[in-house]
Amino acid sequence: MIERISILGTGLLGTSVGLALRAAGFHGTVTGWNRSPENAQTALSMGALNSIAADPLQAARESQVVLLAVPIYATLDWMEKLSGVLGSDHMVTDVGSTKAQITAAADRLFNTPERAAFLPGHPMAGKERGGAVLGDATLFRGAVWLFTDDPTWQRSPHSAELVKDWRGWVIAMGSKCIDLEAARHDELVAWVSHLPQFTATAMSALLEEEVGDAPELKDVGGRALSEMTRLGASPYSMWRDIAYTNTEAVQAALLALEQRLAHLRENLRTPELRDEFEKANQFRRN
Amino acid sequence: MIERISILGTGLLGTSVGLALRAAGFHGTVTGWNRSPENAQTALSMGALNSIAADPLQAARESQVVLLAVPIYATLDWMEKLSGVLGSDHMVTDVGSTKAQITAAADRLFNTPERAAFLPGHPMAGKERGGAVLGDATLFRGAVWLFTDDPTWQRSPHSAELVKDWRGWVIAMGSKCIDLEAARHDELVAWVSHLPQFTATAMSALLEEEVGDAPELKDVGGRALSEMTRLGASPYSMWRDIAYTNTEAVQAALLALEQRLAHLRENLRTPELRDEFEKANQFRRN
Repeated sequence: MIERISILGTGLLGTSVGLALRAAGFHGTVTGWNRSPENAQTALSMGALNSIAADPLQAARESQVVLLAVPIYATLDWMEKLSGVLGSDHMVTDVGSTKAQITAAADRLFNTPERAAFLPGHPMAGKERGGAVLGDATLFRGAVWLFTDDPTWQRSPHSAELVKDWRGWVIAMGSKCIDLEAARHDELVAWVSHLPQFTATAMSALLEEEVGDAPELKDVGGRALSEMTRLGASPYSMWRDIAYTNTEAVQAALLALEQRLAHLRENLRTPELRDEFEKANQFRRN
Repeated sequence: MIERISILGTGLLGTSVGLALRAAGFHGTVTGWNRSPENAQTALSMGALNSIAADPLQAARESQVVLLAVPIYATLDWMEKLSGVLGSDHMVTDVGSTKAQITAAADRLFNTPERAAFLPGHPMAGKERGGAVLGDATLFRGAVWLFTDDPTWQRSPHSAELVKDWRGWVIAMGSKCIDLEAARHDELVAWVSHLPQFTATAMSALLEEEVGDAPELKDVGGRALSEMTRLGASPYSMWRDIAYTNTEAVQAALLALEQRLAHLRENLRTPELRDEFEKANQFRRN
């Protein structure tokens, strides 16, 4: 049923969706737009797009599905713009890493019988660096694609069909769909995604100061150090909006880890250390 | 020149050394001993050993090189026992993860012209789980093998030759030798090895409490979560002696990370966050 898709933002995720749709057998047209035209050109030359849109709003109007693959605040801006120009035969979805604000905007601006549908989405896939050139048709294979859809939203039958069809393409791209409430989503990803990221950033920054002047000795850490700091390469531009839109939950997770590290530090020579290792072992066994 | 090696402790590291020596073309005999006979039997059946020693002290006496591949306090115990029964035609080496106490014992008990040589060693290789069955001939390829040798030690010409020859085998097993002072070693590994381990343990234990009851949602974290908690599977038995023998340096590193996390937590919405990401990026670029 979906035959015309436009992708606004052809960075790593937008480009990967274009490639993954092709690999999954999508035969319709995919039009892309990016603030930096070079990135759109790269996505086109990689085969992620059929064409580059000159006017993103017009491209959106001419599509059935609009995928917003831009940072969170840019997503919110596009939602404002698109709400006025799309109607009940359109659906919009996104890939933003926090969902409370986007889901609230979706409730305010979309999802009535007269308006376009908006399906808030979040594929749990990525790389520590962005850009179209890293686009990958297999990025979503085996990943979880979270949705914070609201079952009380009253969509037109046509846009509701588009939402159903889009979920089918997400599965066809290799992902597993999980639905949760937006607040629960943001709390959960604070623990399992944002906490690991900010910890890797803090550890990498600390080690840069402590051992950064002895680069040959970084080899000493081997695989363990490399894994624990890989996310240290993530750019600020990818994480700024996350820090701004999920501040409280991230702060709670960071504070809890600080306290846990202090507890461990104070118990390096007591049996409490064994309990902590056993609890950690339990997490990895499950 | 080295033709007879005994390995006391045939867990992951001892077994891997036996296998790696074979793969590197060592044609002499390797005798092994382990407190738990099953592990020695496994190492033998995997081809890491030529025979199992009934009496470890006698096996050590009949070898030219004795490799201690046991936890740190057990290494210190063996050093006391071996010092009295070995002489200037022997050398002993170890794989302990902290080196200050072992190097001090090596100075007190070995390394005179009349006594055996002791070369304190630390291969930066391992897995998050131990045991002979995980032994791997390629474990040391591309790894760094640290030594905290003391150039002022007066060894017999024969034992000095054994030390030189053993370093050659370490290189043949695929490792790069780096020499540093014991105190500097312990400080450095606190940053690049012990801090990552204890952080992964603390994060895993915390997540076990926070999301441990929602096991299907662990998938949500994906590769990032998996990497940041992989070391959470490490057993207490492998880390207890490290925590005991490098307490001060580990405490300093943990406290520094706690403070760094607190700084980041307090600056989620300020430009300081960008500086922190840039410093982390710098670490990964080097």
